[in-house]
Amino acid sequence: MIFENIAVLQANGTYLPSCYVGVRGDRIAYIGENPPAEDYGERINGKDRLLMPGMVNAHTHVAMTLLRGYGEDLPLQSWLFDRIFPFEDKLFSEAVYWGSLLGIAEMLKTGTTSFTDMYYFCDDTVRAVLESGIKANIGRGISCFDPTKRLADLPAYAETRELITQYHGAENGRVLVDVAPHAEYTTRPDLLQDAASLAAEHGLRMHIHVSETASEHKECVGRHGKTPTRLLEQVGMLRQPLTIAHGVWLTDDDVHCLTAHDVTLAHCAKSNLKLGSGIAPVVKFREMGLPVAIGTDSAASNNALDMVDEMRMAALLAKGSTRDAGALPAGEMLFMGTRAGALSQGRTDCGDIQIGYRADLVMLDLTDLGLCPSHAPLSNLLYGAGSRAVCMTVIDGRTVYKNGEFLTLDIERVRAETQRAVDKIAAK
Amino acid sequence: MIFENIAVLQANGTYLPSCYVGVRGDRIAYIGENPPAEDYGERINGKDRLLMPGMVNAHTHVAMTLLRGYGEDLPLQSWLFDRIFPFEDKLFSEAVYWGSLLGIAEMLKTGTTSFTDMYYFCDDTVRAVLESGIKANIGRGISCFDPTKRLADLPAYAETRELITQYHGAENGRVLVDVAPHAEYTTRPDLLQDAASLAAEHGLRMHIHVSETASEHKECVGRHGKTPTRLLEQVGMLRQPLTIAHGVWLTDDDVHCLTAHDVTLAHCAKSNLKLGSGIAPVVKFREMGLPVAIGTDSAASNNALDMVDEMRMAALLAKGSTRDAGALPAGEMLFMGTRAGALSQGRTDCGDIQIGYRADLVMLDLTDLGLCPSHAPLSNLLYGAGSRAVCMTVIDGRTVYKNGEFLTLDIERVRAETQRAVDKIAAK
Repeated sequence: MIFENIAVLQANGTYLPSCYVGVRGDRIAYIGENPPAEDYGERINGKDRLLMPGMVNAHTHVAMTLLRGYGEDLPLQSWLFDRIFPFEDKLFSEAVYWGSLLGIAEMLKTGTTSFTDMYYFCDDTVRAVLESGIKANIGRGISCFDPTKRLADLPAYAETRELITQYHGAENGRVLVDVAPHAEYTTRPDLLQDAASLAAEHGLRMHIHVSETASEHKECVGRHGKTPTRLLEQVGMLRQPLTIAHGVWLTDDDVHCLTAHDVTLAHCAKSNLKLGSGIAPVVKFREMGLPVAIGTDSAASNNALDMVDEMRMAALLAKGSTRDAGALPAGEMLFMGTRAGALSQGRTDCGDIQIGYRADLVMLDLTDLGLCPSHAPLSNLLYGAGSRAVCMTVIDGRTVYKNGEFLTLDIERVRAETQRAVDKIAAK
Repeated sequence: MIFENIAVLQANGTYLPSCYVGVRGDRIAYIGENPPAEDYGERINGKDRLLMPGMVNAHTHVAMTLLRGYGEDLPLQSWLFDRIFPFEDKLFSEAVYWGSLLGIAEMLKTGTTSFTDMYYFCDDTVRAVLESGIKANIGRGISCFDPTKRLADLPAYAETRELITQYHGAENGRVLVDVAPHAEYTTRPDLLQDAASLAAEHGLRMHIHVSETASEHKECVGRHGKTPTRLLEQVGMLRQPLTIAHGVWLTDDDVHCLTAHDVTLAHCAKSNLKLGSGIAPVVKFREMGLPVAIGTDSAASNNALDMVDEMRMAALLAKGSTRDAGALPAGEMLFMGTRAGALSQGRTDCGDIQIGYRADLVMLDLTDLGLCPSHAPLSNLLYGAGSRAVCMTVIDGRTVYKNGEFLTLDIERVRAETQRAVDKIAAK
């Protein structure tokens, strides 16, 4: 396909007012001010349209879309133990499949082309990923409260190995598998160490929650005499490429430690606010050299899976909390929501509009009221129109969403089956 | 008209799963679980729909939609003096009319039924209000940097008097006029005093910016030996019903002073973040007894006029900044965005779904992905779907927006004429 006479925003905020962008197979093959000599097939009129890189949701639990609105106005601990865990105890395979599809549909509609997930029933989430056309890094959450068990004794271990064998690299790399211990407070150092070995053995990335709440951070120091970050270093987890989610309470020493390794912070501003966890000082973290990507966390604590909304929150919060209106300008924010996310997934050829990159593209309708008048399209997307302006989503060169229609899934059925699954769980 | 078998959310968050809501003329005439005996005309099927009170935007400058995205990533002072004021120097009547219509269109689409405005060229904004069907409290911003001039010498004085004569109470009270000195730092105590007298003479409400930035608050103390709030008290402004915008830097003493009078704070969380002004501690203010409503401020510093987005921001910020996930629960937030706003406008029969109240109603599409599954419609509106779920807006019993169509304005023309006006200003 070829986008003709279209405005283009690149990941670093560069704005090209009128371009031709040609897609061949799963790649961007042409970018130029003049039409290419070759034929690219389907021609898409770019009048009043803008093309931007697909957004990358660097931390979520997509199947928890089943629990959107299920635990409201509660702090993390009682939210988890009184609402989320009891619901999750009743989960079943089909529910996870439909809940994943619902969450994926929301991401496609709002311009997300790839996400990093941590949950269980991963087979079902992978099935939803494969069918829907989205990209994902999938990690089976590893947790253990039984001191007699080693990593190899856990179902999560067997399931992770099975995921690796079956799905790592599937569909031309559309699915990747991460090794994903849940957190320090839900595992043990020996489990983290064994998880790191598993990741090293297969050359995989890792994904974990770190220093989300003050109490969790402090309790780790009490238990181990060191912060969660320094514990990860001790057990060898920082030797693998790693995504840490949240990091609200990272110390300066933690950040210095992390920047010496291949670690990205997945900043989940909205979830951190909603659960009362606090505000991660990401402006400072970035100045110290820590790569920061953007994640929504789950719909149970967000309650959306909308990356534009998430970038909006992260940028505004950075400005307001530092009392510096110049903090995280729009171009940097876009980079965090696109390219930085792709890099955090190990997808070096994703997350930007460049020749040779994967064709993960989002088209916006510039006639949306929130984008008028035309002073600053990127700022007006971030702060004004939001994801409402998304009119087309393309992944690996394949159109998955266009003008309200989902081309890879039956949205009426997804909605009805998700509600049916939720009703079934409630009846248990 | 009558809404049949529809879910209803009242301003305090009360959820009625299935109702009949009948509208006669400009009023809500029936609410019941069973169909009414009388005929209400047009029947609206409430299946998969939810009816809520229209939202009230308690502080904006609607014509500044012309400047959406015009001053980005700048702090208040350079934003104002380097970008906004030079642009505003070139404004003209038609530009304000079209810019106001664009902003009003955005409010109608996102479920706002009334707004409180402060700007100039007020005739043109009133014309847009009258044509579009929205409600508004209009104030001619009063400012003066010439020490030889008294209030009565200013064009703003003559224009305010003219507005009062021509429009106060127009169209069954749809338009009201406020007396609106801009701020302490853009006026003088004698001007504020005279403005208060003008308001008292006509029994009008007042509207002013107060303690938006730390420097403005501090400089007032330097100039007058008292805070902006205590200065307003001294000049008699607190004897009139009053809306103060922002209040980020109000002291506890200020709040005690304000609660002894008929004052509402219009909290503009997003604008305060974006300009780096700070975070107003509204949880504390409310505990101290200060009524708090919600405003967007202008699209030049927001960049949307979307009250759901604004309530989302205010609620999340309250939770995150107090580190209390229970702060500002959804029901309280809805009250602030609806009924508290109506009361701040002196519209005691607006802002809720109650028999005898004005029929200012918003209908949501519950099949929006962000509202699925159905655990908590209000939370999922606030944090999940956002205003995307608005499918119908009714003001004084008149449908002004439905399923993407504007029934009172030609949106294509509004968009084109706004862009034309902006291009004309840029060319000057």
